[in-house]
Amino acid sequence: MKLPPPDPQLVEQLVYANRILYDQGVVDGLGHVSVRHPEVPGVYLLSCNRAPGLVRRADIVCYDLDGNAVSETTERPYLERFIHGEIYRARPDVVAVVHSHSPSVIPFGAVRQPLRPIFHMAGCLGTGSAHFDIRDSAGDTDMLIRSPELGRSLADSLGACSCVLMRGHGSTTVGQSIEQVVYRAIYAEVNAKLQLAALGLGEVTYLNEQEAALAAATNDGQIARSWNLWRGRIGSID
Amino acid sequence: MKLPPPDPQLVEQLVYANRILYDQGVVDGLGHVSVRHPEVPGVYLLSCNRAPGLVRRADIVCYDLDGNAVSETTERPYLERFIHGEIYRARPDVVAVVHSHSPSVIPFGAVRQPLRPIFHMAGCLGTGSAHFDIRDSAGDTDMLIRSPELGRSLADSLGACSCVLMRGHGSTTVGQSIEQVVYRAIYAEVNAKLQLAALGLGEVTYLNEQEAALAAATNDGQIARSWNLWRGRIGSID
Amino acid sequence: MKLPPPDPQLVEQLVYANRILYDQGVVDGLGHVSVRHPEVPGVYLLSCNRAPGLVRRADIVCYDLDGNAVSETTERPYLERFIHGEIYRARPDVVAVVHSHSPSVIPFGAVRQPLRPIFHMAGCLGTGSAHFDIRDSAGDTDMLIRSPELGRSLADSLGACSCVLMRGHGSTTVGQSIEQVVYRAIYAEVNAKLQLAALGLGEVTYLNEQEAALAAATNDGQIARSWNLWRGRIGSID
Amino acid sequence: MKLPPPDPQLVEQLVYANRILYDQGVVDGLGHVSVRHPEVPGVYLLSCNRAPGLVRRADIVCYDLDGNAVSETTERPYLERFIHGEIYRARPDVVAVVHSHSPSVIPFGAVRQPLRPIFHMAGCLGTGSAHFDIRDSAGDTDMLIRSPELGRSLADSLGACSCVLMRGHGSTTVGQSIEQVVYRAIYAEVNAKLQLAALGLGEVTYLNEQEAALAAATNDGQIARSWNLWRGRIGSID
Repeated sequence: MKLPPPDPQLVEQLVYANRILYDQGVVDGLGHVSVRHPEVPGVYLLSCNRAPGLVRRADIVCYDLDGNAVSETTERPYLERFIHGEIYRARPDVVAVVHSHSPSVIPFGAVRQPLRPIFHMAGCLGTGSAHFDIRDSAGDTDMLIRSPELGRSLADSLGACSCVLMRGHGSTTVGQSIEQVVYRAIYAEVNAKLQLAALGLGEVTYLNEQEAALAAATNDGQIARSWNLWRGRIGSID
Repeated sequence: MKLPPPDPQLVEQLVYANRILYDQGVVDGLGHVSVRHPEVPGVYLLSCNRAPGLVRRADIVCYDLDGNAVSETTERPYLERFIHGEIYRARPDVVAVVHSHSPSVIPFGAVRQPLRPIFHMAGCLGTGSAHFDIRDSAGDTDMLIRSPELGRSLADSLGACSCVLMRGHGSTTVGQSIEQVVYRAIYAEVNAKLQLAALGLGEVTYLNEQEAALAAATNDGQIARSWNLWRGRIGSID
Repeated sequence: MKLPPPDPQLVEQLVYANRILYDQGVVDGLGHVSVRHPEVPGVYLLSCNRAPGLVRRADIVCYDLDGNAVSETTERPYLERFIHGEIYRARPDVVAVVHSHSPSVIPFGAVRQPLRPIFHMAGCLGTGSAHFDIRDSAGDTDMLIRSPELGRSLADSLGACSCVLMRGHGSTTVGQSIEQVVYRAIYAEVNAKLQLAALGLGEVTYLNEQEAALAAATNDGQIARSWNLWRGRIGSID
Repeated sequence: MKLPPPDPQLVEQLVYANRILYDQGVVDGLGHVSVRHPEVPGVYLLSCNRAPGLVRRADIVCYDLDGNAVSETTERPYLERFIHGEIYRARPDVVAVVHSHSPSVIPFGAVRQPLRPIFHMAGCLGTGSAHFDIRDSAGDTDMLIRSPELGRSLADSLGACSCVLMRGHGSTTVGQSIEQVVYRAIYAEVNAKLQLAALGLGEVTYLNEQEAALAAATNDGQIARSWNLWRGRIGSID
């Protein structure tokens, strides 16, 4: 079967997503963002093993859900591409995935405390982030999701949430589009920083479940405004 | 009735206010700043639905206090323009309004603790910021001020203060000029960051009511110095 | 008596000091730095009322210790120039003065806790910063040092220290040269940030008096290395 | 004996290491990074007394383990070059050394609390950083490692660790290559910031010894990705 080549505009958007996540401090040299192939749900697009801030169009590779490259490439893949494939397999509703070590989120994973929405911008956190400890399913490891099995464990922990914290490692966020998952990853980081500050001040009133759901729905109609700002900061991508 | 076209210099100043608030970290892709029409008190100037860092002269629209555009535009308005109209209605002394999700202020709204002036630069905080919880008047919502009724509730909570914290959302600051409201919004954010740090150190001595009032009056004579610095960082706006 | 015109190189150095303090985050639109006239100890050089980040050669004015301009100028002076004059009067050893609202220092003034040297770079803090509360000598004010009398109170509180915290306002640092006072003001801010973090972690072992004095003496021989870096970031000053 | 001139590519890499450490906030005007001479284990390469952000190829000098220049130079050396020589003497496995006052690490040294790996990126911290208090071996000093004796004390405290915190001063990190030691110094700083935040949130689950060792081994295969990003930010070095 020949894979329909992905829309060049989708590839460009994915490159911008990489650059934006770096510019906004969600990823540093590591971390990655993928999108499901619009015509072939069992395939996703992801950069080769490159720092997100340096990703170009030619770096985007198609992988099947087992993590095998299905478009031509001679570059090394990311060790942790199984995060993407197994989440796409477990969650048919998911169209885009960000994995990062976004700094303010790490402490919450390390103390097993969920992110909760401290403001409307993070409504997608709902009643809280999910938690994943690789030690529970695999004992002592290098912490990385370097196999389909580990990817499945992570997808299990994610459940129906939009964000899963990974103890001693980072976090993974999912969405229904590239723009949405970038937005969610950026505001998960912002929310973590604000939640940390608020917890030092007193008893925090988070958005309740209904408020979070309503805010998340509203946010989805406003993402273009932020995306245009973020993209405008990047300049040329080639 | 034909609306007198606003002074081009006022429009330019409002565009700079948008850009400065972004450059100084008070707004990100969201947030907005308005000014009352100098000749028609029932009209205010506000950008269309655009990230403040991208606002240009052509984006400035005139709205009546009910939030209806009264100058020509084909662009979407901000969902929350009712913040501006209802504050202008309730507070004839107010000439300019900033609404933001400025980060250090959010935690104070989430724990229902007022900002208090920790240094003279924030004298306008007086004896403390006001507090608004949308849940008190409207139950579960998406947290946004998306109707005149919600705008009136917010204006009620603001009362005679210069700043109202909005639980789970952000804050709104008012002033007697564009320069003053920008100054106040910037130093509300700075004050929040310093107040948070001080509360972790020990018992804080804030400015008392008289000190705050005297400092606020002095600050008003010094704003041009800061405005020139902030504006000089922006470069061309078109 | 005709005032000998100050060395153009000293003027240039003072302009760089202004720009460096802004670039390093010690001052924003406000704050100022002065140097004593090398040939006339009763005169000091200070910018007119301008944001430090915008100061140019032509802005430098000579003032006598009472705060009267003694070189030609048509520009407004800083309201708080009395900080400089009265410290130069009280402390013949002082050659340069920085007044700032450097952010991490404010919380210490607000809780009346001294800065103490947490690392060798801040050895000049010795056994701790001095403290000044304007309320003690002048009751309710706008917090500013806007008269010779208030300047004398501040100089009294400074005593023989290198740094005095001013409650609800900022801090003032003194040194034996422009480079040294800039160095001290930058590392007072850094020290404050680190001291704040350490106090949240556990019991802090500060440099003792002897260590601080030895470190301060060593630092003085290394300032040029940092000054060259800081100055190189500024580019042209005109 | 004539010293074989070091490979120009190694010199260039060392210059980039200086610039990267400055760009990433690990060093400011102070701090230094060295590499062992690949052909002469008793010699190391280190800049003359220059801010790391300004170091150029011509500034790189060869020193023997006693801290004597063994290549031609007329420039002042760093006061603390003995850190490098004595660690190279005590640790034949070490190929590169970074000494810094990286800010988030200082508070841990001041309260004698080790850095522990809060995420896989800092796996090289193993079961914790080592601790050095100069007062233990030398009484009251200016805190600097300004003699071979003090260098030996520091090397003793470092032991077999990859990082030693120096009370009231900074820290020193070692590695098997320039890229690795730069990576380790950057993530020691990141880890410190995250550990500080997590300790304020609750009980932290660090990587255990086995996880840390496995993660460190994996990281070593991924350093090039980050190095390319960091180096790409620097531009021309001459």
